[in-house]
Amino acid sequence: MGQGVAERLAAGEDELRALGMDVRIVGVVDPALGSIGSQQGLDPERLLAEVATNRSLSGYPGAAELPEGAAAVSAVDADVVLEMTPTDLQSGGPGLQHVRAALRAGMHVATSNKGPVALAWHELDELARQSGVLLRCEGTVMSGTPLLNVCDGGLRGAGVRSVRGILNGTCNYILSRMEDDLEYEEALAEAQRAGYAEADPAGDVDGWDAAAKVAILANLVLGSSLTVGDVDREGISDVGLGDVHAAAAAGQRLRLVGSVGRDRSGAVISPRVAVEELPASDPLAMVRGPGNLLSFDTDALGVVTIAGPGAGRAATGHALIADLIAIHRATS
Amino acid sequence: MGQGVAERLAAGEDELRALGMDVRIVGVVDPALGSIGSQQGLDPERLLAEVATNRSLSGYPGAAELPEGAAAVSAVDADVVLEMTPTDLQSGGPGLQHVRAALRAGMHVATSNKGPVALAWHELDELARQSGVLLRCEGTVMSGTPLLNVCDGGLRGAGVRSVRGILNGTCNYILSRMEDDLEYEEALAEAQRAGYAEADPAGDVDGWDAAAKVAILANLVLGSSLTVGDVDREGISDVGLGDVHAAAAAGQRLRLVGSVGRDRSGAVISPRVAVEELPASDPLAMVRGPGNLLSFDTDALGVVTIAGPGAGRAATGHALIADLIAIHRATS
Repeated sequence: MGQGVAERLAAGEDELRALGMDVRIVGVVDPALGSIGSQQGLDPERLLAEVATNRSLSGYPGAAELPEGAAAVSAVDADVVLEMTPTDLQSGGPGLQHVRAALRAGMHVATSNKGPVALAWHELDELARQSGVLLRCEGTVMSGTPLLNVCDGGLRGAGVRSVRGILNGTCNYILSRMEDDLEYEEALAEAQRAGYAEADPAGDVDGWDAAAKVAILANLVLGSSLTVGDVDREGISDVGLGDVHAAAAAGQRLRLVGSVGRDRSGAVISPRVAVEELPASDPLAMVRGPGNLLSFDTDALGVVTIAGPGAGRAATGHALIADLIAIHRATS
Repeated sequence: MGQGVAERLAAGEDELRALGMDVRIVGVVDPALGSIGSQQGLDPERLLAEVATNRSLSGYPGAAELPEGAAAVSAVDADVVLEMTPTDLQSGGPGLQHVRAALRAGMHVATSNKGPVALAWHELDELARQSGVLLRCEGTVMSGTPLLNVCDGGLRGAGVRSVRGILNGTCNYILSRMEDDLEYEEALAEAQRAGYAEADPAGDVDGWDAAAKVAILANLVLGSSLTVGDVDREGISDVGLGDVHAAAAAGQRLRLVGSVGRDRSGAVISPRVAVEELPASDPLAMVRGPGNLLSFDTDALGVVTIAGPGAGRAATGHALIADLIAIHRATS
C-alpha cells in the first residue's frame, strides 16, 4: 500500500504542485522494510528504488531510524499521517492505536484501514473534532473509486435515502464463477490463486469485510455511529451450485449485497449484508468478477451508481492521495 | 430549473447551515414569471408558492422589480449567480452574456447552461481567473449526477486517460426502444410524448447536445480548450430498424457514444460523438431508456463508471446547489 502511495505521489507531483501542495514524506514506518525519517523529506522514487533493490529502507542515505508503530507518530513532525496497516475487525489492531495517537497529537489522518472506522468511528470522530483535525478514509470502501469523497462533495444535499452495493470483490468473484458452473470450493481456490482471496478467506466469505464497509457507509454517508457488530451479516459459504442454478432458471442472479438506509425521521435502518436473488437487469447483478458497485437512492437524483475496481495497490494509493488533497483543500 | 433550485434549497436548508452556509436569494430573473429582488432575501418556499398560485412573482411582498437579463447582474449585490437559461449552441444565447457580465462584475457563477461552457470555455475561464472568481457547471453533463465535481475531487490525481459515455438521454431512449422493435419515428414520437425530446429534436438526434458535453468534458476534465465545433459529430436519425436488428443478431447493441481521450504527451485527441456497435456486456450498452453513464479510463483505478439520470428539474437544481457548496468551500 505504501508503495502505491509513493507511486501515485511520484506520478502526480506536477498536479499536486498545481493545487498548491508541497508534499514532503518526513517518515516511513514499516515493520518489514524498516522505519526511517527525515525532515528534509524522503523522495518517493528513491524509496521505491530502495525497496525494489534491497527489500529494505535502512540504506536510504541521510535518513534517521524511527521507532515503530504509534511511537513513530511522536517521533516525527508531520501534518498528516497516512495509515495503511492491515484491517483487524476484532480489536482494531495496531491501526486503531496509530490513528488515535496521530489524532491526539494534532495530525490529520487518512487511512485505508477499515478497522478503526468500522469499530470506533464515534470515538475517533470526536477525537478529531477536539484536536481540530480531519480523519478521512476514502480507501476503506471500493478502494480508490471516488465514493466517500463523492458523498462529501457532489452528493451533498441530494438527500441520500439508502445505499446498496457489491462491496466485496472476492465474494462477487466466487458467485459469478459459480454461474460458470464451478463448485464453491473450486471458485474459492481460483480466487485465492488469482490473489483476490486471502489464505484464510473467512473475513471475505463470511461477510465481515462487507459488513465493515456497510458500517463505514452508515457512519460517513448517513451520519450514524454503527460498528461492524451492528450489521446483520450473512456470508456466501452456504451457497451451493444448486442455488445458483435455481436462480438462473428464474432469470435471477445471486449476489452478496451490503445495504443500509434511513427512515423518514432520518434514523438509520436495516444495516445488513445478505445473499440476495436479483433480476439479471439489476446493476448489482451485472457486476461480474472482482468488481465493486455502489448504488445510492437519493431524493434529488433518483438512483446514482458508481462502479470501479474493488482492490489494488494503485487504487488504494490513489485513495490516500485523494484524501490528502481533500485535507489540503479544507485546511488551506 | 429555478424551481428545482428553490426546492433543493428549501429541502437542504439544515444541511447547508451545517456547512456554514447562509444562503440568501437576493434576486430572481425570469422573462415569463417576472424579475424581483430583495437584499433581505427571498424565501424559496414563498417563491415556489407564488409561482404555483399566481404563475408570477410580481406579487411577492416587499420585493423590488429587477431589470431583465445581463442588466439584472449589475442591479443586485450578490456573491454568486446561478445561470440556467436554455442552451443555445450557435451563439451561446443570453446565457453567455449573463455569465460574462457576472464574471466581469466579480461574482462567482454556477451554470447548467451548456452553451457558454461548450462555446467559450477558454475566454470564460480566463475571465474568471482575472476576476478572482469561480465558474462551475456540474449541471451541464449528466444533470446533477456528480461528475465534474468527482473529476475535480476524488478522481484528481488518478490520471484520467479518456472518458466515454452515454451523454444524451433522448437518443438512448430512442435506440433502446428500437430494440423493442419500434421504428425510429415511433420511438422519437414516444420520447416526445414522454417529455424527453423537444418538439424540434435536432439538438438531440443530430448529436449536438452530446457533442457539447464532449467539449465540456474535454475542457474541464482533460484541460483542453475545445468548442462544440471541434467535436466529430454523428447523429442517430439515419439508424434504421434493420441496423438495430443486425446488431442484435451479432449480440451487439447500437449506442450514441461521446468520447475523448489524451495521448501520452497529454494532448487531447479524438473528441467525437458516433453511433457505436457495442457488445451487450459493455456497461454503455446496458444503459436503457433516458439514463446517462460515463466511464473514465484511469492510470490508478482502471475503469470507473458513474451512472445516473440524464435530466430533470430536481437533478439540475441539485447540480447548482452542489456547485454552490463547492464555491463556498473553495472561498471560505
